[in-house]
Order: sequence, then structure tokens, then C-alpha cells
Amino acid sequence: MSADHPGPHRSIATVCLSGTLEDKLAAASAAGFAGIEVFEPDLVASPWSPTELAARCADLGLSIDLYQPFRDLDSTDPARFARNLRRAERKFDVMEQLGTATVLVCSSVAADGVADPDLLAEQLAAAAVRAGERGLRIAYEALAWGTHVSTWEASWDAVRRAGSPALGLCLDSFHVLSRGGDPAGFAAVPGEKLFFLQLADAPQLQMDVLQWSRHHRLFPGQGAFDLTGFVAAVLATGYDGPLSLEVFNDVYRQADPTRTALDAMRSLLWLEESLADRTPVVPRALARPPAAPELSGYSFTELAVDGVSGPEVAGALAALGFAHTGQHRSKPVQLWEQGRARVLLNASVVRPAAAGVAAVAALGLESADPGRAAQRAEVLCAPVLPRTRGATEADLSAVAAPDGTQVFFTRTHPGGWPADFLPTGDRADDGGAGLTGIDHVGLTQPFDTFDEAGLFYRAVLGLDPQPVTEVAAPFGLVRSRAVTRPDRAVRLTLSVAALRRGGWAPGVPDPQYVAFATDDVVATARALRAAGAPLLPLPANYADDLDARFDLDSALLAAVREHGLMYDEDDAGAYLHLATAVLGDRVFFEVVQRLGGYDGHGLVDTPVRMAAHRRWRLQAAG
Amino acid sequence: MSADHPGPHRSIATVCLSGTLEDKLAAASAAGFAGIEVFEPDLVASPWSPTELAARCADLGLSIDLYQPFRDLDSTDPARFARNLRRAERKFDVMEQLGTATVLVCSSVAADGVADPDLLAEQLAAAAVRAGERGLRIAYEALAWGTHVSTWEASWDAVRRAGSPALGLCLDSFHVLSRGGDPAGFAAVPGEKLFFLQLADAPQLQMDVLQWSRHHRLFPGQGAFDLTGFVAAVLATGYDGPLSLEVFNDVYRQADPTRTALDAMRSLLWLEESLADRTPVVPRALARPPAAPELSGYSFTELAVDGVSGPEVAGALAALGFAHTGQHRSKPVQLWEQGRARVLLNASVVRPAAAGVAAVAALGLESADPGRAAQRAEVLCAPVLPRTRGATEADLSAVAAPDGTQVFFTRTHPGGWPADFLPTGDRADDGGAGLTGIDHVGLTQPFDTFDEAGLFYRAVLGLDPQPVTEVAAPFGLVRSRAVTRPDRAVRLTLSVAALRRGGWAPGVPDPQYVAFATDDVVATARALRAAGAPLLPLPANYADDLDARFDLDSALLAAVREHGLMYDEDDAGAYLHLATAVLGDRVFFEVVQRLGGYDGHGLVDTPVRMAAHRRWRLQAAG
Repeated sequence: MSADHPGPHRSIATVCLSGTLEDKLAAASAAGFAGIEVFEPDLVASPWSPTELAARCADLGLSIDLYQPFRDLDSTDPARFARNLRRAERKFDVMEQLGTATVLVCSSVAADGVADPDLLAEQLAAAAVRAGERGLRIAYEALAWGTHVSTWEASWDAVRRAGSPALGLCLDSFHVLSRGGDPAGFAAVPGEKLFFLQLADAPQLQMDVLQWSRHHRLFPGQGAFDLTGFVAAVLATGYDGPLSLEVFNDVYRQADPTRTALDAMRSLLWLEESLADRTPVVPRALARPPAAPELSGYSFTELAVDGVSGPEVAGALAALGFAHTGQHRSKPVQLWEQGRARVLLNASVVRPAAAGVAAVAALGLESADPGRAAQRAEVLCAPVLPRTRGATEADLSAVAAPDGTQVFFTRTHPGGWPADFLPTGDRADDGGAGLTGIDHVGLTQPFDTFDEAGLFYRAVLGLDPQPVTEVAAPFGLVRSRAVTRPDRAVRLTLSVAALRRGGWAPGVPDPQYVAFATDDVVATARALRAAGAPLLPLPANYADDLDARFDLDSALLAAVREHGLMYDEDDAGAYLHLATAVLGDRVFFEVVQRLGGYDGHGLVDTPVRMAAHRRWRLQAAG
Repeated sequence: MSADHPGPHRSIATVCLSGTLEDKLAAASAAGFAGIEVFEPDLVASPWSPTELAARCADLGLSIDLYQPFRDLDSTDPARFARNLRRAERKFDVMEQLGTATVLVCSSVAADGVADPDLLAEQLAAAAVRAGERGLRIAYEALAWGTHVSTWEASWDAVRRAGSPALGLCLDSFHVLSRGGDPAGFAAVPGEKLFFLQLADAPQLQMDVLQWSRHHRLFPGQGAFDLTGFVAAVLATGYDGPLSLEVFNDVYRQADPTRTALDAMRSLLWLEESLADRTPVVPRALARPPAAPELSGYSFTELAVDGVSGPEVAGALAALGFAHTGQHRSKPVQLWEQGRARVLLNASVVRPAAAGVAAVAALGLESADPGRAAQRAEVLCAPVLPRTRGATEADLSAVAAPDGTQVFFTRTHPGGWPADFLPTGDRADDGGAGLTGIDHVGLTQPFDTFDEAGLFYRAVLGLDPQPVTEVAAPFGLVRSRAVTRPDRAVRLTLSVAALRRGGWAPGVPDPQYVAFATDDVVATARALRAAGAPLLPLPANYADDLDARFDLDSALLAAVREHGLMYDEDDAGAYLHLATAVLGDRVFFEVVQRLGGYDGHGLVDTPVRMAAHRRWRLQAAG
């Protein structure tokens, strides 16, 4: 790897993006892609002739790297094979007009597909000769559900037997890894016979591989596949072609393509960085963003409030044992503290919300190098936020997360951001309720950006996405995923309705929460009740069920019943937590205690908590 | 079957319905259910004690027929089995307070589940003895993914071996039919050992059976399973317990429970009717709605229009060769006719819509017995619409479809509904463009009611739902299903976005369409162009692709290119169709010609048509 080599040619299949071909090209170009794969149905539906499309791509600086897919070429029926060759010639006409050299031919899924390796090679060679006569070439790919050719080894066998210069291999990470294929075998393939490389990640699902492929592919870094190992094996062959994304995904098919394209570019940059240490010799200079500085915890969570929700949240914080320790020098922002737990209440308009609403507007994360963290974010296509400062205000680097939450990279020291706040005289260590810091923050995600968010926190902040879990909540399934520091100094939970909510969604709309840590949740609960904190009552049935399931010791069970605690266990320990009412229509607080090495976030209790929140709301309403 | 027997006890599991337990009970009661299964997590999240729940159910006339589920009872680890028995005792306490006698115990999915049949029987018997001592009983069910017990035969073997009076079988149609189980074997089970029956349908999917069960179950008649045969086999054993629905479905989990419960009741009534001729001796009087009268075709399609969209649609109809033949005696409704194709333009407010919008408001279907059709609809929980009439107006029976479309049952004769219209003097048979009637109507469905609609048209109108298909359209996947008369005199296509549309949905919003039949689409197209009809231009690429795929004869291909025709084939024939621009923001017309026995609706062309409609719209806007 060397800086005087150009970077890799980054490409994206038009099928990854929603919209018409015009929308797709604009999005790919804006995100910095150098090329596209033209997905045939996108061209068929377009008013641009192939020549016009080529001109449009040239204007946008996009090369057309692949025309795809050509299906069901080979046939045991000679007449049908002849018709398929005619069809191929028509598509070669289109490719000539497009000015693209390579067409993807997938292994046949038809009943008449050829099983005999020699006949298959002969038919592929016949098509390749015709392509070669026009200066075109065929990249042959094994679909994971192909009738006879469903592994990359079988596709390579066919290409090798055909022995045609215009016939090579297309490797697609989904088709290989979904079947548990081993990229180590790529070493047997000369790099010049690898004509194309398509990249997609995916969650590990137990389902029909075709449905998995057509609906649930993800961009690299969003799923469970080892894309880094896959691409390292490909590059080791000497492959020097495009790194091209091909993702079929139900959500991305309907989401804003401009956003998806940036997400896609971020996934490639993340992938390249992960490759940089794995591949000693690569022909291209892979992306090397500034390394992610260590994050050592939350410095604060900022809530946007107004004249109605501000006093409500402030009252709750006071009852939770927080002290109002500081007032911002130039803005209507209060600093509340207890232990290392800090909450900012910002009454300037941070993000649009309805009247009376409180919302998590920003996370302050303690960074070993805030400037570098922001530089990394910028390289990784995250929107770096302009920061208006007063004369004495600290320079805070911030980026916007996919849900709009601002992420500040901070260093908390007396001359840092706390210096923006004038002391009120109240002290954080007086009369607290035992809260020691922020355990985690729970952010409900917009439906379209759940997978984007997992990659954002992974790539931009260096957090580890945990497996996606689902719980059946009263108003629909809720999908959740934690992203965490390896040392758990920073934890976030991201959640989303498994289906976008419709007209009947009478629960609390998408509340976010801040979970404060305590070393003794029972003592804290007692203090909170004494102070009149708006603790959420839980049904007695819940405690009865805990007793049936866990046979808790009687003192703990009594505390659960008395204080409305929730309880969960995993292999390493246990978790006790309680919730407040929803404040300002959108936010609640949790108090959590981890026992032993419990590593979850009590998400199993979400349905009970949601039902209790709705009940509280109905009672408050009347 | 005899009328002096009471009807079956119709029950529904609370898990079928969205909301809190309070929402669910209200919905089940309003829909006329006699009982519920209490799904444990619903109780755990409820503020009602079991005793309070029992009282609430009694108030609503609902029996509590089952407490469920109790998971992972048996264990190879004696200490764990002892803990499981303790847990069972706690749940027996709950059941006593609920006043319910039967608990569902599922086969274990745990690694420590018991494989040895005798040990399993011994452990089940041990639990059953404890239940029996309290007057309770255990219904044991094989989960299709149970570790060792995954077929109903294995669960029956365990029950038989245990030989405990308080232990019987629960049969669940999903668990049996998803694994291809044969209900004929139920004949070996004495009816009194069948303690409970759970009913669910499902689409035929290739996926992990647990995921299939947890996310995609449907109510009877909505899916692909033979529920009629299943229940007939159960009733033949002498089973006289509840017919109870247990449907886990992602959409119903988040949809209005009042509506879902009615849909569920309709599914049971439909199922009972389908059983009536299959089971010569049953202990209960099954539902027998008035038989569905034959439908012989469309009498009309009614569009709601306003002062802006009305003239636009009328202009298009005129250019399509329709004549404005009648004017309603008392309302601002125009009758347009060509051949047997009739369109009503109704400028009184039929359904709320934005200004300038046209929408399909009603379908007129020619019925052999309109009164009986309406009676049947009412029995099957469909909202029968009040009909305000003028002195001379025909009495029209109408019901509301799930999407709000009004379905009129008509008899078209001179003294019937056409008598409501005063002749304008224009004649339907003058100067037409060759349109002979309505081939089908395409209705985009609200996201939450797609499956409900399939059952509505099946049960209420006696149409046959066809398989669900999916196409990748420019702004997301579109799912479609046709419902048709066996003789195809009536065809409808229902479509829905595979995921509810979000903020980025720049296509034409959910257009509906009316497809008119012609015997010569090329001649009709020529006439339409001459008359200045707003025909939708299609891209040349589309015709090029048709040529590559189908090698069409040159005259036909020339006509395709000239007139913007779309083309599809199936095994039995071919289909030529064209579309107009979208009129009044929401509606377009198609002209279709069927060649040979083509039985589809050209849905494969949806993506090209949608892209062309968006282009038209952008050009019109700008």
C-alpha cells in the first residue's frame, strides 16, 4: 500500500438505491462513487437510451463497470440455447451503446439449466466468443440457489473448462458466504480471471437463501459476514477491479437514495480500513481514515426542552438527586450533575419538536482526541456540525448521528466545556441519590435508518454492534441492537419498530431514555420515592412472574414489589432497573444496577415498561 | 348438525391482537367472541390481578379457555425439573385466580429437554398429577421446532404413555401443517384426550419454521393451509371444545385490534361454513351464512371526483371513446358508457380526499341476488352501508370493503339502478374505441389491511384469492394479489407496499386503476391517440427488452413501440395493455387485451409503468 497508488475504484449497483435511474445516478455521484453497475430493470424503465445514459454518467464522473444480470444462458434444449444467444446479442448491443465491457451472467435457475460440466463450459464459451468478437467479456457468477451451479467452485470449474479469454469469474460475497464458502480457495484463481467483485453483508438468518439474498442484504459492516476476510482473499489473487456494492434490501429500496449512497460509501471506507492491516500487498491505496480515538464514557446527555417540558424534566432531575450546578454563559442551557452523571437541559431550539416535548438532542462522549474524532467522522461521510461559540466557550467537535442526535467529542476538564457554565453554587455531591454516571442511552431510531445507525456507530465512533434482538411489545414488535465500547465505557441501545408504525399506534410515541448507574438500586429507589420522583409503577403480576421464573430471594422480591423494579439475568450476572414516567412526552429516565458481569440492557422488560407507560399516560390524560 | 345445538365456542388468543389486555378484551368482545386464551405476557404486563381479569372477562361475556404458554417443563436435569415444577405451581396459582382449567404446555425447545419417551411421559404425568389435584389440566402441544418433540404424533405418544386423566393434547394447525403433518391420523386419538384446538393459517413460505410461525401466521382463509380438512379431522374425533385462533403476525401485532378481531371472527365463520358440508356429524351447529350469490361481472365503477378532477377524468373518458349517457336524478353523478363498460363520476363527497383528487369510491357488481349478498356480508361482519335514496331511486345493497371502497350488489336492468339516471341523449354505442367492458379494477390497499382484504373478498363475495406476488418497483417492493371469480367474470387486483411508505416516497401515491377490455388493443390505441387520450409514453428500452426476451413478430413490436403498449406472457397466452396518465392525482385507466388463456394482470410491468407515471408527473409539474 502506498500513497502514490490511486485509491480503489468504488462502485455501486443501481439496484442498491431507491428511485428512478436519474435519482440513483445523482445519489451515487454525490456520495463520491467512481462507478456503477447498471441493473437492467433500471435501464429498461428509463427514458434514456443507453447512449444517453452513458453521456449522463460521463457528465457525473461515473464509469459503467458492469451490465447485469443476464439470467439463464445455458440450456439443455438446443433451440432454447439458440434463443438465449440471440437474447445475449441484443444485450451486447446495449452494452456497446453504454460503452461498458463486462456483463454479469448468473448461473441458471431454470429447470433446463445444464448440469454436464463440459456442455456448460461449451455453451459459456460460445457466448464468450460472441462477446469477445465485440471486445466484450462475460463475468460468470454462481447464484447460491442456482439449479446446478450454486458454489463459486462450480462456477470457477466452468470458467476454467471453457478456457475462453472473454470469460471470467464474478465473485459475490453474499453468494459465497451465505453458503459457508471458504474464500481461502480463491488462491487457486489467477487474478486476471477474476473479472468482477460484488460485495454485500447480511445478518445471519435461518431462511431460504434466495429470500435472504433478495430482501435482507446489507452493506459491509452492517451484518454478520466476514467481509474483510473475503476481500483480503480476493485482493491476494491480484484482483485490481472495482470494489462494487450489490445490496438488495427492502428498506433501502424505499429509502432516500442520497442517504443510502452515503451509507454505502461509508461501508466501503470502513471495509478498506479494516483491510489495511490484513493485506500486505494490494495494488491500490486503501482508505485510511484517522484512527478512532478512545472513548472513555459519557460526559453528558443533552435534552432539548421548552418552557413546558423544561420545568417538568428539571423537577424530575431534582427528585432523582441531581443538582443544578451550572448555567450556560450565553444560552438558556442548564447543567445538572450527580456523581459523573451530567444532564444538560437546552431550551434554545436544538431540533424541531412539538410544544411541550423533551428529546435527547445530544450525547457528549469523552474522547482521547476530539479533533481527530471529528476528522475521522468527516472522512467517513458523517455530517460534521458547525458550532457557534461565544467568546469564552469551548470548541466542541460534533457530528450528527443518523437519527439527528448530535454527538459531541469532549474532554471534560476545568478549562474545557464545563467552563461554559457559570456555577450556581449548588454542588453535585450534596444529597444525591447514589447515581454514579450514565450507564447507557436508549435512542429510538427512524425506521429507514436502523441499519445505517449500526454502521455509523461502528465506523465513525469505533463501537461494536451487538446482535439484533426482537421483543413483542404491546403495539408491535420492537427490534433492538446495542452498540458498545469493548470495555463498555460507552453503551447505546438503538431500537426501532419492526414495521413502521401506522395509524393505530396508541403507545407512547418512540420514547428515548437515559439510564443512570447506581451501585445500590434499592437504596436509590428508596431515596427517589422519598423525594417524590415520578417512578413508574409496575404490575404485581410482573413480580409474581419473576418469582415463578427466578425464585428470587425474598428480600429482593420484596424490594421489586415495593419499588417497581425490573429484573433480568444473563449467564454472567443480573440487572435491576427502574423507570420514571415519560417526561416531556418523549423521554424517560432509568436507574440501573449491574450485578456480576451482566452485559445486557434489560430489553426483555420493554413490553411491561411500555404497557405501564401507556397506562400512566391514560391516567394522566384523564 | 342441527339448529337446536348451540354454535361452537369461538375463542381467540390475546396474542392475536395489538394493544394492552384492556384493548384486546374490548376488541374480542365487540367482535362476538365467546372466549379468550390468555397469553401470559399480556397478563404479566397488566395492572389487573388475575382475579380482576376474571371479573372483567365475566362482565364482557368472555370465558377464559386457556392459559398459555408454559414453556420447557421437562428436563434431563432433575434439579431443573424440580424448579420447573415449582414454576408450574406458581402458574397453577394464577389459573385458580383466573378460574381457568387448562394450561398449554409446549414441547421443550431447551437443550436439556427430555428425549427419552418414558422419562418425558413420567415428567408430564408428574406435572399433570399436581394440576389434577387442583382440578386443572394440561394440554400438551408439539412445537414444530421442539428439541425432541416436534410432531403431533410425538406429543400424542407422550400423552398416551403418561396415561394421566389431567393430561391431554393441544393440536395447533400451524405446528401440524407447517411440517406437512397428516390430520388423518387424528382418528387414533379419542376426542376426550383432545383438550384444546388452536387454529392458524399461513402463506406457504420457505423459511425457518420458528420465524414463519412467529411472524407470518394468518387467520383461516387468508393463507395456503387446508384448515377445513384439518378441523374436519379434529371434529371427527368428537372434539367439542373451543375453536380458538392463535395468530402471531407482525402486521396484526400493530394494527387496530377492533378491526383485527372482526377479521378474525369472519375467518372462523368462513371456516365453519366451509366445514358444514365436510363433517356429517358435529356436536355444534356451525355457522351457515346465506350462500354467496353468483356475480356475473362489473355493472360499474364509481369514481369520486370534484370540480377539478371531474372535468379531467370526464375529458379522458371522452377521449377513450366513452359517452356521457346519463345524469343522476338527484345527485351530481354522471354515467359514462362504452359497450358494457360503465363509469360513474360522483361529485358529491363520497370519501374524504384532498382537493383535485379522483379516487375509486365504489364497485358495482352484478349479483344474482343483491339482497342475499348483503345479508351474507352482514353475517360475515362486513359493514353494510346505509343507502339514502330519492323517491325514484333504486334500492342498492352495498357493503364497505376493508379499504373503504363501497361494493354495490346490483341487477342491471331498465328498472334497476340505470333508472336513477336521466338520459342525456348521447349513446354508448356511437363512436366508441372498442372497449367492451371492465376487465378488472386495481385497488391499492392500506398497509394494515392487505390480508384482511384477501379474506373479505373470499368470504363475503365468494372470490378466489390468487397467490401473492412481489415486484421490485422504483420506490420499493410492491406486493400484489388478485381475487377472481372462478369464471373470471370478476377480477380485482389488490396491491400494497411491502413496507409501509416513509418520507421518501416520491412516486405517484398509490394510484388505483380501472382496466377496460378490448378485443384489439392496437386498433383501440390508434383510436385513442387520434382522440387525444392522455396515453402514457413508455421508454424505447422497454420495447427493446421485450424484443430481446420474446422475439415478438415485427408488426406487434412496431405497434408496441408506436403506442406504448406493455406485453406479458404466461403458459396459456399473452397480454397487451396500455395505461393513461394519472388523472386527478390518484387514478389511471388501462386498456387490456387478453390473447389465448392469459390469466394474469400484467403486474410484471408495474415498475416500468410506475417510473413512467413519475416522469409524466415531474414533466407536468415542471
